[in-house]
Amino acid sequence: MVETVIRVEGMSCGGCVRSVTAALKSLPGVTDADVSLESAQARVQYDPATVSEQQLREAVEDAGFDAPA
Amino acid sequence: MVETVIRVEGMSCGGCVRSVTAALKSLPGVTDADVSLESAQARVQYDPATVSEQQLREAVEDAGFDAPA
Repeated sequence: MVETVIRVEGMSCGGCVRSVTAALKSLPGVTDADVSLESAQARVQYDPATVSEQQLREAVEDAGFDAPA
Repeated sequence: MVETVIRVEGMSCGGCVRSVTAALKSLPGVTDADVSLESAQARVQYDPATVSEQQLREAVEDAGFDAPA
């Protein structure tokens, strides 16, 4: 299991935070996601054998937010 | 193609609206989704041979919002 921090742009309320959290936690291989509105970041614990950091970013983008590399 | 209106609870800003819109439009069979923060509703055009209204609601729930039947 590894941990990474992804920048998440476009969140402006608690609903956004819930949405990004749900998008990340729905991915196979993600065991935890802690999303912060204040820091515009998601701290994600995941199994790199199952899911890549790029796929984490894509899930955030698919949820309607920006996740620049 | 049919159109339905789904109640969406928990949205509180434009980021939420973008997120629900993205979740709905990502579904195969959905051709358009017009999500309103003010009315807490999503107006969705979809092909009922490809996707069901229940699946539309599940996509909204998976995105972190409530979509009561």
